[in-house]
Amino acid sequence: MNSFEKLLKIFEEFPGIGPRQARRFVYFLLSKDPQFLSSFSENIVDLKKEVAQCKECLRHFVKKGQSNDSLCSICADSGRDHSTLMVVAKDTDLAAIEKSESFEGYYFVLGGLVPILERNPERRVRANELHKAIERKAASGLKEIIFALSATNEGENTSLFLTKFLEEDTKKFDIKISHLGRGLSTGSELEYADKDTIKAALANKK
Amino acid sequence: MNSFEKLLKIFEEFPGIGPRQARRFVYFLLSKDPQFLSSFSENIVDLKKEVAQCKECLRHFVKKGQSNDSLCSICADSGRDHSTLMVVAKDTDLAAIEKSESFEGYYFVLGGLVPILERNPERRVRANELHKAIERKAASGLKEIIFALSATNEGENTSLFLTKFLEEDTKKFDIKISHLGRGLSTGSELEYADKDTIKAALANKK
Amino acid sequence: MNSFEKLLKIFEEFPGIGPRQARRFVYFLLSKDPQFLSSFSENIVDLKKEVAQCKECLRHFVKKGQSNDSLCSICADSGRDHSTLMVVAKDTDLAAIEKSESFEGYYFVLGGLVPILERNPERRVRANELHKAIERKAASGLKEIIFALSATNEGENTSLFLTKFLEEDTKKFDIKISHLGRGLSTGSELEYADKDTIKAALANKK
Amino acid sequence: MNSFEKLLKIFEEFPGIGPRQARRFVYFLLSKDPQFLSSFSENIVDLKKEVAQCKECLRHFVKKGQSNDSLCSICADSGRDHSTLMVVAKDTDLAAIEKSESFEGYYFVLGGLVPILERNPERRVRANELHKAIERKAASGLKEIIFALSATNEGENTSLFLTKFLEEDTKKFDIKISHLGRGLSTGSELEYADKDTIKAALANKK
Repeated sequence: MNSFEKLLKIFEEFPGIGPRQARRFVYFLLSKDPQFLSSFSENIVDLKKEVAQCKECLRHFVKKGQSNDSLCSICADSGRDHSTLMVVAKDTDLAAIEKSESFEGYYFVLGGLVPILERNPERRVRANELHKAIERKAASGLKEIIFALSATNEGENTSLFLTKFLEEDTKKFDIKISHLGRGLSTGSELEYADKDTIKAALANKK
Repeated sequence: MNSFEKLLKIFEEFPGIGPRQARRFVYFLLSKDPQFLSSFSENIVDLKKEVAQCKECLRHFVKKGQSNDSLCSICADSGRDHSTLMVVAKDTDLAAIEKSESFEGYYFVLGGLVPILERNPERRVRANELHKAIERKAASGLKEIIFALSATNEGENTSLFLTKFLEEDTKKFDIKISHLGRGLSTGSELEYADKDTIKAALANKK
Repeated sequence: MNSFEKLLKIFEEFPGIGPRQARRFVYFLLSKDPQFLSSFSENIVDLKKEVAQCKECLRHFVKKGQSNDSLCSICADSGRDHSTLMVVAKDTDLAAIEKSESFEGYYFVLGGLVPILERNPERRVRANELHKAIERKAASGLKEIIFALSATNEGENTSLFLTKFLEEDTKKFDIKISHLGRGLSTGSELEYADKDTIKAALANKK
Repeated sequence: MNSFEKLLKIFEEFPGIGPRQARRFVYFLLSKDPQFLSSFSENIVDLKKEVAQCKECLRHFVKKGQSNDSLCSICADSGRDHSTLMVVAKDTDLAAIEKSESFEGYYFVLGGLVPILERNPERRVRANELHKAIERKAASGLKEIIFALSATNEGENTSLFLTKFLEEDTKKFDIKISHLGRGLSTGSELEYADKDTIKAALANKK
């Protein structure tokens, strides 16, 4: 396989990209000057050097200067609420929650969700790493784990699996597990809401 | 204007129908046999005869036989919870909630929502009728009014207007006003959730 | 079935309308005043009185005043080109072609297309009526029949069936059969054009 | 700017990619192992080495082995029809036409289209290179240039500009300019076809 074909294959792996758009991407690269291509190529190599994965929450963050930080800015901030840990599927979910300025505790990034009927769920999410994080954080006062997962079948499946997987930990350290509240999300019209959403919206009425 | 043009105009008033589809509707009618057209025409006339508007909740319901019912089956059922009244915008919202089998009280249909900046909100929703219904229901133990409105700007505007409009009643009869809970609705992905939804989902965590 | 349910069924037969929108239509009618409903009902009855089907081309047209016209304005216009007859699937297709001001002959409306694998194609389109129209028009100089059908499988199937069905007529009267030209339609991008379109566009290059 | 931010900017330049998907692409890269990233990075660098631009038609092609080909396989094939030259906007258009197996002449890739109101059209398309190609090809029997451009405003604008720009050449060498035929493209429904398409379809009837 030549580089043209290899790049086609690589771009087809990108999220949401099919063969047709992959082809347009390669032709796009061919239309750019050598400087663009070497900058692109170099930044890809640099990415893993400049971006570190936080030892605690496992999210990615850009390292500052020559520093050898192993903690992201949130985990390095000892002033947040040590009693709550929010478990999210991926880095962008964490970013969405930080943007809402409504949570002050710490995070843990699962790295995915568990598909329905998956036989080895611990291979799809960082279950063991979460277990270890909980052991560490229990010492500093962890009291509640909030599963902040999408309101989809995969999200619920992941939450079921982890609740069971962490049962010993939560009992041992007396940690409560909670979930993001369900209800009408912004823009929802009642007429088109499903049973579960209406039930939750009624249960959560205020 | 001939009947062809009049029907074009009438169909263009239908919800979600533009000039092109209105035209297709008229051509569709032209393609049907006289029996279809007379049945269509007669049922339109019969509709208002066979369907009554409930005196209490103001929703529409099909009358049974020759009866002269003035109450719908829900309002006629004295066994429901007299302490709660759910206020919805339209008949189909009421139907969606009944389908969810999660509410046992009575309803009131507003007949619409109040658009932002509307100067005469009481002309857009049945505010006076709601006021009278509350006076009647207060006698039989009404304790809570639940606004079950869409999670949109119009829904919030309506709720603000009515809360103010009903202030005297709710004080006088010591009635609590509540709203459907906000949060992740079924299918919501965290990554794309807006600030308000995330805040509500966190506030409603269980 | 009461009038509410009957109207649901009727609206579900409308082109492009599913159960949910049918329901919204009935609730829409319930929200209108009696005058709107009687006007709607009456115009449906009047439609077949005021609209006639042209004896020649079989399209629908609004009758003028008390007149008992049996010909539409196009067929009644003896000044058009008697040598060409354009065969279209439906009234709206004819309207689209008239709007383009590019055809001066007469029309015939098939009333539909023949689905693939249809066993009784003559029951889906007005094949016999077309045959008779050709016999009549041959006397006044018909020399060419243009099939102006959609560039879809059903369009091609219809054209194949009719070409065969009319074989005797076209031989007897020495009438040429032609089809609308294929090629790039307005807005077509070459990159996404299929083989057949490109072949036709090349064959029709000018 | 760090590599994370630089890659965001680079991906936002990709055709059809907005800020949100650019971000997902960078996170996608972060989730891949170092081998994937170095392969990706290397293939980008190799692309310009392994892919050459044909000296004649200016399209890109993958070089075979160590060869130093300066002509693509089509331009290197002396057995094609020297009398026709097809002018296309981009490499993928050429590929679409080759796939249709309906053209046997040679190609020229413009590298784009001329936007409406562009003041320096010769900077947007390879007009001068086309002029030179025509001079060369006139010697070997070029008789017709086919503009195979999209049926859009930009396509027509480009064709107008080039026809004028090449006027001297086409006169001098007695070369005919033609355009792909317009008409119904596959799947087009007559009812929704615009005036120009219907006119062309009628003019091209067969």
